[in-house]
Amino acid sequence: MNKINKEISITFPDGTIIKKPYGITGLNIAADISSSLAKQSVAIEVNSELIDLSRSIIEDASINIIKRNSDQALELIRHDCAHVMAEAVQLLFPGTQVTIGPAIENGFYYDFAAPKPFTLDDLEKIEKQMLKIIEKDTPFVRDVWNRDDAIDYFKSKGEIYKAEIIEDLPEQEELSIYSQGDWLDLCKGPHLPSTKHIGTSFKLMKVAGAYWRGDEKNEMLTRIYGTCWRTDKELRKYLNMLVEAEKRDHRKIGKEMKIFTFDEEVGPGLPLWLPNGTILIEEIEKLAKETEELGGYDRVKTPHITKGSLYEKSGHLSHYKDSMFPAMDIDGNEYYLKPMNCPHHHKIYASSPRTYKELPIRLAEYGTCYRYEKSGQLFGLMRVRSMQMNDAHIYCTEEQFKKEFLDVCKMYLKYFDIFGIEKYEMRLSLHDPDKLGEKYVDEPKLWLKTEDLVREALEDGKLNYVEIPGEAAFYGPKIDVQVWSAIGKEFTLATNQVDFAIPEKFGLSYTDNKNKSHTPLCIHRAPLGTHERFIGFLIEHFAGNFPLWLMPVQMVIIPISDKFNDYAQSIYDELKKHKIRVNIDTRSEKMGAKIRTAEISKIPIMIILGEKEVQDKTISIRRKFHGNIGTTQLSEFISLILEEINERKKTKSK
Amino acid sequence: MNKINKEISITFPDGTIIKKPYGITGLNIAADISSSLAKQSVAIEVNSELIDLSRSIIEDASINIIKRNSDQALELIRHDCAHVMAEAVQLLFPGTQVTIGPAIENGFYYDFAAPKPFTLDDLEKIEKQMLKIIEKDTPFVRDVWNRDDAIDYFKSKGEIYKAEIIEDLPEQEELSIYSQGDWLDLCKGPHLPSTKHIGTSFKLMKVAGAYWRGDEKNEMLTRIYGTCWRTDKELRKYLNMLVEAEKRDHRKIGKEMKIFTFDEEVGPGLPLWLPNGTILIEEIEKLAKETEELGGYDRVKTPHITKGSLYEKSGHLSHYKDSMFPAMDIDGNEYYLKPMNCPHHHKIYASSPRTYKELPIRLAEYGTCYRYEKSGQLFGLMRVRSMQMNDAHIYCTEEQFKKEFLDVCKMYLKYFDIFGIEKYEMRLSLHDPDKLGEKYVDEPKLWLKTEDLVREALEDGKLNYVEIPGEAAFYGPKIDVQVWSAIGKEFTLATNQVDFAIPEKFGLSYTDNKNKSHTPLCIHRAPLGTHERFIGFLIEHFAGNFPLWLMPVQMVIIPISDKFNDYAQSIYDELKKHKIRVNIDTRSEKMGAKIRTAEISKIPIMIILGEKEVQDKTISIRRKFHGNIGTTQLSEFISLILEEINERKKTKSK
Repeated sequence: MNKINKEISITFPDGTIIKKPYGITGLNIAADISSSLAKQSVAIEVNSELIDLSRSIIEDASINIIKRNSDQALELIRHDCAHVMAEAVQLLFPGTQVTIGPAIENGFYYDFAAPKPFTLDDLEKIEKQMLKIIEKDTPFVRDVWNRDDAIDYFKSKGEIYKAEIIEDLPEQEELSIYSQGDWLDLCKGPHLPSTKHIGTSFKLMKVAGAYWRGDEKNEMLTRIYGTCWRTDKELRKYLNMLVEAEKRDHRKIGKEMKIFTFDEEVGPGLPLWLPNGTILIEEIEKLAKETEELGGYDRVKTPHITKGSLYEKSGHLSHYKDSMFPAMDIDGNEYYLKPMNCPHHHKIYASSPRTYKELPIRLAEYGTCYRYEKSGQLFGLMRVRSMQMNDAHIYCTEEQFKKEFLDVCKMYLKYFDIFGIEKYEMRLSLHDPDKLGEKYVDEPKLWLKTEDLVREALEDGKLNYVEIPGEAAFYGPKIDVQVWSAIGKEFTLATNQVDFAIPEKFGLSYTDNKNKSHTPLCIHRAPLGTHERFIGFLIEHFAGNFPLWLMPVQMVIIPISDKFNDYAQSIYDELKKHKIRVNIDTRSEKMGAKIRTAEISKIPIMIILGEKEVQDKTISIRRKFHGNIGTTQLSEFISLILEEINERKKTKSK
Repeated sequence: MNKINKEISITFPDGTIIKKPYGITGLNIAADISSSLAKQSVAIEVNSELIDLSRSIIEDASINIIKRNSDQALELIRHDCAHVMAEAVQLLFPGTQVTIGPAIENGFYYDFAAPKPFTLDDLEKIEKQMLKIIEKDTPFVRDVWNRDDAIDYFKSKGEIYKAEIIEDLPEQEELSIYSQGDWLDLCKGPHLPSTKHIGTSFKLMKVAGAYWRGDEKNEMLTRIYGTCWRTDKELRKYLNMLVEAEKRDHRKIGKEMKIFTFDEEVGPGLPLWLPNGTILIEEIEKLAKETEELGGYDRVKTPHITKGSLYEKSGHLSHYKDSMFPAMDIDGNEYYLKPMNCPHHHKIYASSPRTYKELPIRLAEYGTCYRYEKSGQLFGLMRVRSMQMNDAHIYCTEEQFKKEFLDVCKMYLKYFDIFGIEKYEMRLSLHDPDKLGEKYVDEPKLWLKTEDLVREALEDGKLNYVEIPGEAAFYGPKIDVQVWSAIGKEFTLATNQVDFAIPEKFGLSYTDNKNKSHTPLCIHRAPLGTHERFIGFLIEHFAGNFPLWLMPVQMVIIPISDKFNDYAQSIYDELKKHKIRVNIDTRSEKMGAKIRTAEISKIPIMIILGEKEVQDKTISIRRKFHGNIGTTQLSEFISLILEEINERKKTKSK
């Protein structure tokens, strides 16, 4: 028995290498260090693969012990929680078949084929049953089954879906089965050591329909969503965030503040921007234009439709047709609504011969694009069919690329600062060298070079970024920008892409100082994303209490009785002269009612005018989150307010 | 012979009534006044109908003698010129058939079925032949023919088209034939007394193809266009205008100044606005927004597509479908590109319940609309398929209507003043009381009332207008606004409409102070028309020398040698701080070359910097149309320039 005496080298994260017996488990390794570490450990990473703590290690390996309080453990906890929920459901509702149940952001779900839909009461019962299972502290045990035995087993149990999943797996794939006590499931794993490691910081959230294998032609299954966290504190924080998010729901506030509306006769996913929403759009566009003007951008305007042949050239029609609206036949040509502005900008670049002296050329347009989304996918401003995009394309030489890219990144930071976005992450998606020529343009040197340049730019700009290998676009590395709202909800804001391939396809070129022709690089960028998604984000982020410069109605004048209306009007006229967005409330209502009306509309500043103000030729100011802030001269007030507006100061909220 | 002694009453324009013998002709009446009047007269209006001077008057009549120098005569001269041209063509090119030949703006045309196309040399020959015919001074003689005889006659002459025209005429219609010597043509008349009255102030302009009866399924005929005037002075003025218009052709200047481009792969009629054009657009929009802000408008934004059902409701699909792009099927609904913004604005009005206190509501949007024009009809920016419209809809009560309408008219005058448009005309199209319920909404009182209000508004505003009965839109009176460019070419700028009908169809309402529901009136207005047509007009109007506030590049800094580049850069930075659109020309070229480059781009101001300027810390200014205008301090220059820009002053041209 040679193997028993064999030793393997275990490399720890700090670089230490220790010989360990062949077949040692993660738990053994942890216990060798300390019993408290053994208690805290839930899994182990072996040569970058996460496995059960109880599995034997049978080769030299770099390892990393995963503690329950780590981020990696959280996904395991959620996945195990899904298994425990499935067991509980089958205990309580015999005849229910299991299908799949992954961990997802904030929790997990499991799809069941249930004889009847679950109610909210059912969810409570299931939760209780789950707590019992967890309390028993049953170990998760991994086993490898023969394929045919597995199919027979699940069929005999009436688990048709599970049997079908196994039948569809590749023949060579190892079939691992995880059991917790009597209950078992086909699962790749890994899992926690036992059910108690899951903890009790979970909650079942809702029931929804879901098609088997996501295909609407298949049967409808019942999905239960749960949220699950490492600690009660995390759970509470998440649930509070949800409550707050519901209060800040952009659809609700959008309606209350008359920002946008939808109309069945216009069509779903096609927002109509009301006057207040149009002010938001115009203020954001003004900011973008000023920023881009400083950045040396030129503005262009292009039509919303174009011949199909242009989208054949750009590759949109072959890769993206499902997300495009259907064609219109005009004079024997197919025309499409544009899903992206790129080809039009490329055409403008190509409209003149270009020399190196003109580069970089930065073409910006808040262009409206149209994309087909299934009606079930539409969601307020977050998923729409028409979108106004803060688009621009930068055409530059390789030498200019790094500076241009960094400038784009700095533009993000400027916007984050203006909008008080404190948490963000840039996800740099890189190519996979093994897939050059297939998934990625076959330009190995250019990939490495631009990826290096992008990385350097991110480092130079001290930007918060992570690298994600094998997720680049076909034609170059890209950066997905994630931001978190004031209440901690994550949003995908925008994507920046580097493009080697399309400029060549469009025959774009410039001549260098020796009159030699080159193809420029192209950066696609849209730091403010689309108006739709960005305003949806801002509504939640500010709960509708936008900073003053952005606020559709910045102030309201409230004369406390009719006899002060003339004075009120004179104040109004003066404010209007300075282009301040002010209303006047001369209704014959009590002051309290007028203040309430203003509060409901979230108007940040109220100017209250009565006997004293008229006599002293002053105004009294009431400011949201600050209450009465005193009496002042109008001219003084105007200069302070204009400073706040023109400098786009952040609102001091409570 | 009773008739011979019978007398009829002839009422002259000044109200004088004189008894004249039955059967008297216009020529006799003129001769009775003076022989010089008889010489000058060319036709007579009898009870509002224009007839030949030689025709007998056989009833009491109000008359108006038409002199050759009158505007009414001009149309006759042009029409007769067409007849003479047809005779000349048939003389010179036997086997050519005649079809039709009307007078048109600036001249006339005649469509021929010719064995072979005419060349420019042919036109010269035809002109010479026409002069001969005119010189002979042959009288135009009217005759009435029997229908079958006429058909037989023209068939026997091989005039198939003419015979076909007669065959298609209603049986009861009197067939008048006009002859000049041996040549004759079917014609309603009237005509001048003789060919010499045509004069010689005409010129044949060009040859074009034209389908028989305007239908592209029919044979292609050959059309000859001519221009024709009362005097050589008028003719010269027109020909000079054409030369000037060609120099100012918006397509030519648009290309030279890099304002817009078209691309075959994007599609015809879909302009791509280059950076300079986008500056024009943004400056015009800024002007519109400021003006509308002062006018109490709210801005909105709406999508470019919508369900067909909305355009069924608005009536566009039943009346306007040929001008719309074809439908796109989305989820089983037909969606269309919007040809007009109205239905979307109506939907925004309808998105909240409205009370009389909110009215008038003025919703403005520079909305891009799409209309199908045949590709042969497309012409630069003047006829396009995508158009950005200075649109707004005003919803008001009947009481508010007149003021609102007048305010719209005043807005036009403001724009005319800013753009130096000195000649304009508003054409007020009224309803026809006989066609109520058919061609016009059956609201007799509302028609009269709103027409009166519109008329009053036009009078109050001292606007230059003419009334055109029976040309109103279905749902209310409308005003077509014609403007003339600096070189005297006429453009249709925009249409304003009053709308009784659509607000009701869309169920728009407001409650009055007794909580009773009413339908608002709606004014459709677009004083600046579309960016496409308006910018096309402005290019011609200014020959590209836009006023400073509108000019894409307002100035260029020209250091006269490389050693002044640093100083130039400091001037550039300072100007940029004030958002002045300035370029800097640091090429290693001679000053003369730099000045020429600036002149070609029509840059209005050049800042020339040399030794002296650097030493004195000054700048030297050269201004288009004014040459060198001296040396100044930068700060002084900036304040003057900002005043010129911010007040949108007119350019002082030569």
